[in-house]
Amino acid sequence: MGMASALGSFNKKRTLLMLTAPVKRIGRIPASWGRHAWSIGREDPRRAVHALKSGTALTLVSLLYILEPFFKGIGKNAMWAVMTVVVVLEFTAGATICKGLNRGLGTVLAGCLALLIEFVAAGTGKVLRAFIVGASVFIIGFATTYVRFFPTIKKSYDYGVLIFLLTFNLITVSSYRQQDVVSLTRDRLSTIAIGCAICLFMTLLVLPNWSGEDLHSSTVGKFEGLATSIEACVNEYFRDRDKGDNVLDNKQEEARASIQIGYRAVLDSKSSDETLAHYASWEPRHSMHCYSYPWQKYVKLGSVLRHFAYTVAALHGCLESEIQTPPSVRSLFRDPCTRVAREVAKVLQELAVSIKHHRRCAPDVLSDHLHQALQDLNSAIRSQPRLFLGSKRACAANKRMLMELNSGKLSASRAALHSFKTDATAALSETTRNARSDQPPAPDRSERSGMLRPTLSKIAITSLEFSEALPFAAFASLLVEMVVRLELVIEEVKNLERAANFREFTGRDHLIVDLSSMEKTRNSNAAALHPVSAAAE
Amino acid sequence: MGMASALGSFNKKRTLLMLTAPVKRIGRIPASWGRHAWSIGREDPRRAVHALKSGTALTLVSLLYILEPFFKGIGKNAMWAVMTVVVVLEFTAGATICKGLNRGLGTVLAGCLALLIEFVAAGTGKVLRAFIVGASVFIIGFATTYVRFFPTIKKSYDYGVLIFLLTFNLITVSSYRQQDVVSLTRDRLSTIAIGCAICLFMTLLVLPNWSGEDLHSSTVGKFEGLATSIEACVNEYFRDRDKGDNVLDNKQEEARASIQIGYRAVLDSKSSDETLAHYASWEPRHSMHCYSYPWQKYVKLGSVLRHFAYTVAALHGCLESEIQTPPSVRSLFRDPCTRVAREVAKVLQELAVSIKHHRRCAPDVLSDHLHQALQDLNSAIRSQPRLFLGSKRACAANKRMLMELNSGKLSASRAALHSFKTDATAALSETTRNARSDQPPAPDRSERSGMLRPTLSKIAITSLEFSEALPFAAFASLLVEMVVRLELVIEEVKNLERAANFREFTGRDHLIVDLSSMEKTRNSNAAALHPVSAAAE
Repeated sequence: MGMASALGSFNKKRTLLMLTAPVKRIGRIPASWGRHAWSIGREDPRRAVHALKSGTALTLVSLLYILEPFFKGIGKNAMWAVMTVVVVLEFTAGATICKGLNRGLGTVLAGCLALLIEFVAAGTGKVLRAFIVGASVFIIGFATTYVRFFPTIKKSYDYGVLIFLLTFNLITVSSYRQQDVVSLTRDRLSTIAIGCAICLFMTLLVLPNWSGEDLHSSTVGKFEGLATSIEACVNEYFRDRDKGDNVLDNKQEEARASIQIGYRAVLDSKSSDETLAHYASWEPRHSMHCYSYPWQKYVKLGSVLRHFAYTVAALHGCLESEIQTPPSVRSLFRDPCTRVAREVAKVLQELAVSIKHHRRCAPDVLSDHLHQALQDLNSAIRSQPRLFLGSKRACAANKRMLMELNSGKLSASRAALHSFKTDATAALSETTRNARSDQPPAPDRSERSGMLRPTLSKIAITSLEFSEALPFAAFASLLVEMVVRLELVIEEVKNLERAANFREFTGRDHLIVDLSSMEKTRNSNAAALHPVSAAAE
Repeated sequence: MGMASALGSFNKKRTLLMLTAPVKRIGRIPASWGRHAWSIGREDPRRAVHALKSGTALTLVSLLYILEPFFKGIGKNAMWAVMTVVVVLEFTAGATICKGLNRGLGTVLAGCLALLIEFVAAGTGKVLRAFIVGASVFIIGFATTYVRFFPTIKKSYDYGVLIFLLTFNLITVSSYRQQDVVSLTRDRLSTIAIGCAICLFMTLLVLPNWSGEDLHSSTVGKFEGLATSIEACVNEYFRDRDKGDNVLDNKQEEARASIQIGYRAVLDSKSSDETLAHYASWEPRHSMHCYSYPWQKYVKLGSVLRHFAYTVAALHGCLESEIQTPPSVRSLFRDPCTRVAREVAKVLQELAVSIKHHRRCAPDVLSDHLHQALQDLNSAIRSQPRLFLGSKRACAANKRMLMELNSGKLSASRAALHSFKTDATAALSETTRNARSDQPPAPDRSERSGMLRPTLSKIAITSLEFSEALPFAAFASLLVEMVVRLELVIEEVKNLERAANFREFTGRDHLIVDLSSMEKTRNSNAAALHPVSAAAE
């Protein structure tokens, strides 16, 4: 009996728990939503400001309908002004102007065409009129839908063509029953004009967000991201696994994650760059200075940066690869490789700083340090004298070979791929272990990695046996290729600077790029890229 | 006098010419527009069909307003149905359904909320009512604009939220002057329902275009494009420049251009893949078979393919690089490398064919041929006995080294980087020439190349001196890496096949992948990707 009551109270408790748990969970939902909403606003406070602006603009335009004097002037169709504000007001000034002008132009053209057709159809019988209306709706519907497939139209005027079709249908179909088509057209034009005016006021004069600025700062962010990526990648490649016992501390984990973030942002930036540049070209701010700002140069710079980032992606590929050069071989070249990477990162950082401050970069941005680092890598690769000697002796009979060795051209790479310090048997097991544990948390691969590991088939195993020094050659070659491509990037940056009239470089501008700015990269990069997607809405 | 008249007639003729020339030119404009329009329709005839469908749908919905019995039922607000058709009808079924449901859901929710507020505001004075309307417009305007920044909302429900705001404002603001808000709400709901119904009818039952099919065929096109890319790239790398005297015939030019097209299409496919998969997930066709089709697996396969394509891009980078291994060294490894590439391309082709026909790929798709080709490359790299001997002799004292050499691990790559046949002095001039003339018509670089060439600075020249065998090591390493990543691709294809219930592989399915299908790749690839952009509108 006592037990039964205990059981009963237990059951009661359980039932109570089962009843209250979901309630509590539901109670927690608004809190988690609130946190989510708060985090989105904190990521980019301009979002909250934009939402406030949007609310204000809608309230303002609603007053047209609510306040007596306005209502008398505009009448029932004031609703179209409200709709215009809802549809046209966008996050950045450029996007709003682009949409507003498209809407205005589409409405004007559609109004003209509709009035023309009304003029033709005027005075005809009801049946003929219905036929004319139906036929013109069909033909214009077909033509505008087809025109929207034209690449040039789709890029810049898609919304305008849509509004053209909408307004044309509205006026033409209405004209069948309503006699005063002219006043309808006038109403539509004026309400849309009022709506666009409120949007332009809000977007241009109240805390404006410029697409051009977003593009500018995302470009700066790309340089910083690439710099972080390259340094982290090379450091990771030469990380001493013996010391750390393969356990990564937080900082290393973070560095490893930052490799991908940096170059991925560049690789994925194509469409957002183009959208931002397109909107930026509508923005008036720079045109006032009598020259149109070269936004297309930013797009071009973006494409050169993507070309550069392919090398960084390949470098990261070396890190992820199943086949790895043993750490003992790698460590021989740690110093020169790290220095080359650091110098490249420094150049990228300097370019970022100079673009950020709208000033030209130093003429000697490709410093002698980089030159020196490259030569050191070169001589490090050559500095395996025993191997060098060995092959020299073997080839002694060969005159051509001798010439070549003296000029030191091919020998470098040969030496690069070998070191006496290599413990090959230890290395193989190490490599295989690395291949299994070394996968950075790549978003593309992480989900598959569990599945992937046990399926390493004969092909993969063949490749593991293949050659362990080959990958280091690829790594070094990619580093050199990266430096070559860096020059293309600098060339394009200089083009941009000339076209955009950046202020001249003065000696005082030589800012020392400190490491703290690189720490911030990840955050600023994320912040810079977010508005892009918002603007593309 | 005679001369004066001659001059006069000459002047007259000139004036006439000056007057007629622009007229003629203007006369030519419609013809060129016509050709442009025709070419766009011929590229994808579904566009013309879609435009016809759109015209028909608009005419149908206009009849609601024109025909007496319909007009009596629906009334003046029939115009909203016309607007709905203009805005909702999209190129593919999935996009139309997504937009239509968003519009419907947004309208219903907004209607409910607006009626609730109307219920609260009912019976209050005019001033208080105006205040309630204004405040609710502001609050809802703020909240919805803010919510549109949430990534999940933006991805799937952006249009619905916009329509929610539009409808809410329409009803709430109208309620201030109009007393029968309920009938207004009902009208809006019914007209939008009619518009959506017409759109759904047109898009689902009359010659439908499926986003899912586009996604499927664009995936097949990606495999084919990569296969072409890889083969063309490796052929180009080992092309004998001595024979052809550096002059490319048309076919080679085309092959060279196809390298970029193939892998670029894969690299740039992220957003279009995601859009298509999103729309495809709304399409009912496959859900009728009691399981939802795994469109997200296609997106995942796309991301694995991008991972694979980074290697192809890096391989293409080897081709474009300023530093080149002399052709005489390269030609030693032509046969095994070409065979590896051909085998990889064959595997990709086979995967393309099996996906295309919705059947599982052969279990032995990673054939022994590829395995054999890899081993041949391995032994080709090892088959430089003199160098091999030389280094062996030099290291004789070193026990570890001996072990390593016997196991043949590190030696392979060392040999790879050298050949006795190399004429280094001839090679340098050749390489420099190649570096200057060898730039494929990359869209990214072509505009700059004129500027770039003379600016090769000391860094580039240092890199040219660097090492000429290093790039071949990178090339070989990338080929091996590509094979390893190919396995990841096959793994993901098998995942897709399982999830999508492709039919089982039977021996008869072993289609012979002929070269003619590879010729078609470029066209089909372009055709497959066009609807993507259309659907993203």
